[in-house]
Amino acid sequence: MKFKIHSDITYQVMSPTTFIFNVHALRTESQHILDESLIVTPPIEIEEFSYNSGTSRFVRLKATENTTFSMSYTATVDTQYKVIDQRQELETVPVVDLDGDIIPFLFPSRYCQSDKLQKLAYKEFGKIENVYSKVLAITDWIYNNVEYISGSTNSQTSAFDTITERAGVCRDFAHLGIALCRALSIPARYFTGYAFKLNPPDFHACFEAYIGGNWIIFDATRLVPLNGLVKIATGRDAADAAVASIFGNASSTNMHVECASLDTDFTPFWYDKNSLKGLSFQ
Amino acid sequence: MKFKIHSDITYQVMSPTTFIFNVHALRTESQHILDESLIVTPPIEIEEFSYNSGTSRFVRLKATENTTFSMSYTATVDTQYKVIDQRQELETVPVVDLDGDIIPFLFPSRYCQSDKLQKLAYKEFGKIENVYSKVLAITDWIYNNVEYISGSTNSQTSAFDTITERAGVCRDFAHLGIALCRALSIPARYFTGYAFKLNPPDFHACFEAYIGGNWIIFDATRLVPLNGLVKIATGRDAADAAVASIFGNASSTNMHVECASLDTDFTPFWYDKNSLKGLSFQ
Amino acid sequence: MKFKIHSDITYQVMSPTTFIFNVHALRTESQHILDESLIVTPPIEIEEFSYNSGTSRFVRLKATENTTFSMSYTATVDTQYKVIDQRQELETVPVVDLDGDIIPFLFPSRYCQSDKLQKLAYKEFGKIENVYSKVLAITDWIYNNVEYISGSTNSQTSAFDTITERAGVCRDFAHLGIALCRALSIPARYFTGYAFKLNPPDFHACFEAYIGGNWIIFDATRLVPLNGLVKIATGRDAADAAVASIFGNASSTNMHVECASLDTDFTPFWYDKNSLKGLSFQ
Amino acid sequence: MKFKIHSDITYQVMSPTTFIFNVHALRTESQHILDESLIVTPPIEIEEFSYNSGTSRFVRLKATENTTFSMSYTATVDTQYKVIDQRQELETVPVVDLDGDIIPFLFPSRYCQSDKLQKLAYKEFGKIENVYSKVLAITDWIYNNVEYISGSTNSQTSAFDTITERAGVCRDFAHLGIALCRALSIPARYFTGYAFKLNPPDFHACFEAYIGGNWIIFDATRLVPLNGLVKIATGRDAADAAVASIFGNASSTNMHVECASLDTDFTPFWYDKNSLKGLSFQ
Repeated sequence: MKFKIHSDITYQVMSPTTFIFNVHALRTESQHILDESLIVTPPIEIEEFSYNSGTSRFVRLKATENTTFSMSYTATVDTQYKVIDQRQELETVPVVDLDGDIIPFLFPSRYCQSDKLQKLAYKEFGKIENVYSKVLAITDWIYNNVEYISGSTNSQTSAFDTITERAGVCRDFAHLGIALCRALSIPARYFTGYAFKLNPPDFHACFEAYIGGNWIIFDATRLVPLNGLVKIATGRDAADAAVASIFGNASSTNMHVECASLDTDFTPFWYDKNSLKGLSFQ
Repeated sequence: MKFKIHSDITYQVMSPTTFIFNVHALRTESQHILDESLIVTPPIEIEEFSYNSGTSRFVRLKATENTTFSMSYTATVDTQYKVIDQRQELETVPVVDLDGDIIPFLFPSRYCQSDKLQKLAYKEFGKIENVYSKVLAITDWIYNNVEYISGSTNSQTSAFDTITERAGVCRDFAHLGIALCRALSIPARYFTGYAFKLNPPDFHACFEAYIGGNWIIFDATRLVPLNGLVKIATGRDAADAAVASIFGNASSTNMHVECASLDTDFTPFWYDKNSLKGLSFQ
Repeated sequence: MKFKIHSDITYQVMSPTTFIFNVHALRTESQHILDESLIVTPPIEIEEFSYNSGTSRFVRLKATENTTFSMSYTATVDTQYKVIDQRQELETVPVVDLDGDIIPFLFPSRYCQSDKLQKLAYKEFGKIENVYSKVLAITDWIYNNVEYISGSTNSQTSAFDTITERAGVCRDFAHLGIALCRALSIPARYFTGYAFKLNPPDFHACFEAYIGGNWIIFDATRLVPLNGLVKIATGRDAADAAVASIFGNASSTNMHVECASLDTDFTPFWYDKNSLKGLSFQ
Repeated sequence: MKFKIHSDITYQVMSPTTFIFNVHALRTESQHILDESLIVTPPIEIEEFSYNSGTSRFVRLKATENTTFSMSYTATVDTQYKVIDQRQELETVPVVDLDGDIIPFLFPSRYCQSDKLQKLAYKEFGKIENVYSKVLAITDWIYNNVEYISGSTNSQTSAFDTITERAGVCRDFAHLGIALCRALSIPARYFTGYAFKLNPPDFHACFEAYIGGNWIIFDATRLVPLNGLVKIATGRDAADAAVASIFGNASSTNMHVECASLDTDFTPFWYDKNSLKGLSFQ
C-alpha cells in the first residue's frame, strides 16, 4: 500500500516561539518511507528528535518574533498491515501478564480520564466476552451517541467532557474510545496520522487497543477505511502526539493536508462485527 | 545519608486482583540500596519490572479471591544529594534546547492540567526572573493558599480541582506545583518516596522541576526536610507512580510506613528564598 | 392517607452558627397538618418563614458556640393525591403557553446543568412522544444506569458528575432526572420529603415534572411507593430545599427519621409503563 | 438621570421556536419608563409576563420555521440612584436576620458555585471587616486577575471555570463576583442592563450585593460608570436573566444596542476605596 502524503502549515509568529511538530510519517517495521522532504520557508534550523520509545518523530524549531513561516512535508510511504483473526480473544490480557512498556497505556491521562468512567464502561460493555467485540462495541456506541461537529470542541476538551456533551471531532472520538478501553483494563493509545479519503482532508486521529499481543486499530468516526491510514505517531493521548505544540505566541494562518493512494487497486477495509478481523500496523 | 525504610500493607481481596506496587526504593546513581527485603505473606509469586526509562521499580502480583495478604518491604538506603547554586538560572531552558526525554514533562497529564492554568500561572509568577525563585514562589503560594486536610480529597482529585477548592494532601500539593510549572514551560515531574520526620508516618509525594539541567526537588507541604527523602519513583503524575494500582476488587485494611535516619548528625535542609540553593537527587 | 412523621437531629456547634431547617411538612391544598410540634432542646428562639411562593416552610435559629442542641419535629399529616390519566399528554406544553411562575423550572440550576445534557437527552429520549412516558423512560434509564451507593457523593455532587460517574444517592438521582427533563424543555423541580417504607429510614428526595398542567411525582430510585411521600418542600434543586443549610461551624452528631402510615389499608402505588397513570400531590 | 436606550436583534428561525426575551427596562421605584416601544417585524403576537417577584419583564413569542424576524425596543428611562455611606457596615447581616426573600441569593446557582469557593474566598477576603470594602476587594481582585477577552467563553461557562481559566466577559466577571460574595454569606444577584459609555455598545452584566439592607451595585469590569446603568432584570444568575432564552432552533444574525444620556451634565460615578460610597438602584 503506497501513499503520497503532504502537509503544509503556515504560522504567523508574534513573539519568539518554539514549535514541536509531529507531521512526519513514522518509520516502523510495517511502514517504510520511500522518500520524504521537509521544507521550511524561509529557512529555519530544525532538529528532529524522538522519545516515547520511538513512537513519534518530532521536529523542533524556534521562530523569531514578527515573522511568518511555513512548513511543508511531502513523503511517499509504503505501509503494510496485518489482518488478525480475533475470534479467540475471549479475555483481556491479565494485567499481571502485560509487558512493562504496555502498562502506561492502562493509566488515565490528561484527555482520557478512565478512572472516572469505570462504572459506565462496565455497565455498557462489561458483559461482552470477546475483547475485540468489546472495543468494537465501544466504537459503535461512540459513533451512535456522539455527534461529529466541526469546531464544537477545543484543545482542552477531554473524554470527561465528551461523555456528557456528546459532540466532538476525531480527536474527541479517539479520547473517549481510549478512556473507555482503559476503564475496562484494555491498554489503549492515541494514533495520529494521514488518512486516505478523509473529507475534507485534514490530519486524522483514532486509537489502538492492545488485544492478544497486538495493537489493533479502531476508529469511532467511521470517516475513513482503516487501511488508508499512515501513522505519524502514537502516544497516551493528544498531549503526547499533537500535530503542533506551541511554546510562545503564534497562530496558524493556513493548513493544507493531502493523502493519496498510489495503488490502482485500493480496497477499503472496514470492520464487520460478524467476521472479527482486526487490523494492525505494528 | 543512610535511612532505614519500611512499609507494610495488608489487603483484603474480594475477587481475583492484580496489584502493581511502587514501594521499592529506586536505584539511581545517587541512591544505593545497601540491603532490602520484600516479604509477601502468605507467599505469592511476584515480578519486578520497570518502565519509564527506569524511573520506578514496579512489583506485580496476582491475588486470588477471598484472600488476605500483606506485603512488607524493608531496606537500608544510602542517598546522596547535590546542593546546586541557582543564582545564575535566570531563564527557563528554552524548549528548543531541552533533551527529548524531558519534553513529556512539559505536557499536561491526568492530574496536572497545565493547559488550563496558563493565565493564572503567568499572572501570579510570570514576572519572576530566576527560575528557581519562580518555582519556590509557586510552592510558597500553594503552602499559603491550600490547606493540608487529611481525607479531603480522593484518587480522582486533580490540580484543576485543587486550584479552586484549596484543600488537599501531599499528592494534591505536588500535582498543583507540577501543573503550575508546566504552565510556565518548566518541565516538572511527580516524586513519591519515604520521608524522614513525616508525622504521622506515611508515603510522601512532592515534585521535581527541571532547572539548569538538573531535576531540583520541591515540596509545597513543608512537612519534611528535603534531604530526608528516599525516592521510590518519579513519573508524570500519580497515575504513573501510585503506591498501588489495583485491577480487581480489593481494599487496604492496614498500612504502616517508617523512615528513620541512621546518621547521628542529620542536619535538616530547607530552602531559603535568599540563598537560592537547590537540592537534587539526580 | 394519614402519616405520622418524626425527625430528630442533634448538632454540635463550634462557632456562632445560623441554621435554616427544612423539616416541616408543607401545608398545601392536598396536604393537611393534623397536629405538629417542634421542640428544640435546650430551648432556642426559632423563626418560621417561607419564600419561593410558599413551596417550603423554613425554620431559622441561631446557636451559640460550644453548644449542642437537638431539634425534634413530630406531625400527623393527611395527604391526598390525584391519579391523573396521562394517555393524552402527547406533547410537552409549549414554552409559549407555560405560566410565568413555571418558567424558572426550565432553566439550569446549581445541581441540574440541563444546558450540558441537551444532546444526550434528545438522543436517548427525544423520540418518545407521550411526555409522561418520556419522563418515565428517564427514571428507568437512571435506575438502570446509576448505582445507588450510600456515601458515594457529597453536597457538591451535581447531575453533571452523576451522568459520568454513575453512582449516587436519592438526591443525585433526583438531580439527574430534573436535568434531563429540563434539557427536553419539560419543567421539573426537586421534591424533598418523608417517605413511608424507606429503609433505612431517612429524609428522601425525588422530583416532579410539569405535565399537562400538573406537577407529577417521579422517583428514579424505586425505593418507596409514590403514595407514601409526605412533602417537605419543592425547589429548583437541593440548593433551595436542603434539610439543613448551615452558616457557621457545626456538625450533625445524630439523626433519626421516621414515617409511619396510620391507615390500615395502605396500598402501595407504583408506576406502570403500560397504564400511564401519573400521581400528583398538587 | 435620563437615558435613551435602544436594542435591535434579528433572528433566523430554522424550526418552530419559542423565545423568552429580557430586553425591557425594568419598572421600579427608582426607574421610570417615560416612553417605550417594542416592534416585532414582521408582526408576531407577543406576551409580556414577569416572575421572580417582579425583578424582570419577560417578553415571550413563538416564531414559525424558516422565518426571520427582528425585535426592536426603544425607551426613554429616568433612573434615580441613592449613594449610601458604607462606613458603618462592619459586618455581614447575620443570616438569621435576613428577610426570607433574600435567602435564595445566598445559595449556589448554575453559574455561581459558591459552595466550591469557600476556602478561597475566606483566604483572600475573610479578614476584611467592612462588608462594602470586602465586596470592593472582590471586584478589584477579579479586575486584576481575570482578563476581559471577547469570545473567550460561552453560555456554559461558570464561576468555577473562570476562577481557574482567568478569562471571560462581563457575564463571567459578574458570576465570579456573585459566587465569591455568597461564599462569604453575602447575598448577591445578577444584574443585566443597558450601559452608557460601554464600548463597543452591547448589553451589560454586573452584580448587586445586599449590604446593610440595600442592594448595592458592583462591576468588576470597570468598563462603565456605575450611574450609567439602566436595569433590565436581576436574578440568581444568567440562567434567570439572559437577554434571550431560545427553545427551538434559531440563531441571531444581527444585534445592535445603544444607550445615550439625555442629561447635559452626566457626571460619571466610580467607587473609591477610601470614600466607601455605595450606589443603589433600589
